[in-house]
Amino acid sequence: MEGVRSLNREIQLIKRPKTVPTHEHLSIIEAESLQPQEGELLVELLYVSVDPYMRGRMNDAKSYVAPFQLNEAISGGVVAQVIESKAEQFTTGDIVTGSLPWREKAITSADSVRKVDPTLGSITTSLGILGMPGLTAYFGLIDIGKPKEGETLVVSGAAGAVGSTVVQLGKLFGCRVVGIAGSDEKTNYITNELGADAAINYKTENVAKALQSACPSGVDIYFDNVGGEIADSVYPLLNKFARITQCGAIASYNVPNDQGPRIQMHLIKSSATIKGFVVGDYQERFKEGFEHLSAWLKDGKLTYEETIHEGFENIPDAFFGLFKGNNTGKQLVKIADPQ
Amino acid sequence: MEGVRSLNREIQLIKRPKTVPTHEHLSIIEAESLQPQEGELLVELLYVSVDPYMRGRMNDAKSYVAPFQLNEAISGGVVAQVIESKAEQFTTGDIVTGSLPWREKAITSADSVRKVDPTLGSITTSLGILGMPGLTAYFGLIDIGKPKEGETLVVSGAAGAVGSTVVQLGKLFGCRVVGIAGSDEKTNYITNELGADAAINYKTENVAKALQSACPSGVDIYFDNVGGEIADSVYPLLNKFARITQCGAIASYNVPNDQGPRIQMHLIKSSATIKGFVVGDYQERFKEGFEHLSAWLKDGKLTYEETIHEGFENIPDAFFGLFKGNNTGKQLVKIADPQ
Repeated sequence: MEGVRSLNREIQLIKRPKTVPTHEHLSIIEAESLQPQEGELLVELLYVSVDPYMRGRMNDAKSYVAPFQLNEAISGGVVAQVIESKAEQFTTGDIVTGSLPWREKAITSADSVRKVDPTLGSITTSLGILGMPGLTAYFGLIDIGKPKEGETLVVSGAAGAVGSTVVQLGKLFGCRVVGIAGSDEKTNYITNELGADAAINYKTENVAKALQSACPSGVDIYFDNVGGEIADSVYPLLNKFARITQCGAIASYNVPNDQGPRIQMHLIKSSATIKGFVVGDYQERFKEGFEHLSAWLKDGKLTYEETIHEGFENIPDAFFGLFKGNNTGKQLVKIADPQ
Repeated sequence: MEGVRSLNREIQLIKRPKTVPTHEHLSIIEAESLQPQEGELLVELLYVSVDPYMRGRMNDAKSYVAPFQLNEAISGGVVAQVIESKAEQFTTGDIVTGSLPWREKAITSADSVRKVDPTLGSITTSLGILGMPGLTAYFGLIDIGKPKEGETLVVSGAAGAVGSTVVQLGKLFGCRVVGIAGSDEKTNYITNELGADAAINYKTENVAKALQSACPSGVDIYFDNVGGEIADSVYPLLNKFARITQCGAIASYNVPNDQGPRIQMHLIKSSATIKGFVVGDYQERFKEGFEHLSAWLKDGKLTYEETIHEGFENIPDAFFGLFKGNNTGKQLVKIADPQ
């Protein structure tokens, strides 16, 4: 039997960005919908997650995830609904999450998605606080930051999906928490909603001075999502045996050969540790993280925010917006309502 | 009773260097010799150790050791002989080591020096392979580098007192070892005498290319004594979960606000760790390190080199020479023969 064709669209990488990604690098293209084979599902996208790390996959360079191929669909975290199942563990109507192509209706192997339990909260949390960003915050803070009561934790990108969770976890572990973000709306959110002890607007304040006054006992843990000049301001304040979780470096993603002050002497002076963090390294412990995060969320000890755009055709703009700091909390694009 | 005066000299810091230290920053000044009080020793310097870390103490800035005071004697690692003892645990003629002022005849509290056992080897080893540099190599490699058989270890400053020991320890632990140094004489020493698998002359070779061919399986451990452009060339080669011991950064010591490529993305890509290393952090384990190093030295599994200048008045030039890469192995200055 021939594949059933129906109108379908996907978003392809058509040119590799050297600096800031724009519409010249991504294109919405008509695509085929095929029927699922044995062990496969036909799913319809409901929500797409756009994430800063995806910028790295647009380069043609070795990294911790393979680069996207030119003239193929971008793929990333999504929530989708099963339209047709050829796998016994799923039935039509199931909500699933996984890394799938940005394609309105897509075929996926049943093994590469997992069912979302809608009783745990909004299905979008599987892309946020109960998904990759939440697990990133959990393992990056617990395993590298090793927070102890009374220590000072600085978080950059503190209003984002990962940062906002780190701020709250830091408070749960008894730290003094200082968040850095790019607007007064975000710094208010960080102190008022997330419970940070202080927040710094890096666009309007002198970060080095503001950090000095917000961290009178120095910095024990730095959860770094951004790198760049903000990180430069943190290094001189590191306490003896400080720990830095290098989770992201969004300030450098679009700057080829980004230069800055060398940091080795800061590390020696404070016997500090920086560790590059990739959540995939913790796959074997995801269950532990998921259980803790679900319990805290259920008990009201964690909260989250989402910035949701609507419409498949608006995915590129939502992605570009990450590099302008447009989002508070998790940036999602809603494609369709579940049936 | 009045102090007995006799001709004596000391070396003072008279001006803080902003970049490269020169004779305008240090001065040889006539000093008093006083008699030791109860619990003190009068000692005569035999050997002085000049070390790169001392440059940091010449700045008036917070670091892991307090800054030197202006118009006071520099102090550092020395071997000395007891001339007069007012402490029961020492007698005239004993050889001692510790951190003492650069003063020909000095008074010290008996508690702040330890006796050197001349049967373990030359008394100068207490400033080198059986002293601070040896312990630095041992703990920096074992505790942070965590060498495993078959891994690739890159060592910068590999012909120096610390680096030459790291190269040999790396071979003892079954690593492929690649040393970097600044002359063909040194690279020959590194491969022929220390047993490294390859050595790179950073003054005549393209370090990035040479490293690529010397490290066909990437870099698992980087023991970094220098920072700067050499470190820049190592970061892109880091393997997954690589470890960097940041022991020194001599390339930056004399360069205010030294700039270079930002390194955060390299750390993320390879889930790598950099840890700032200061040997003093391991004080409680010195005995363990000393025992291992002594045993390996006795068994002929470790060797060492010394570059020895002569004469108290030549200490400053020996110190300045560290930043020109003049020394192979431990740089010492001999002041007097033991009586």
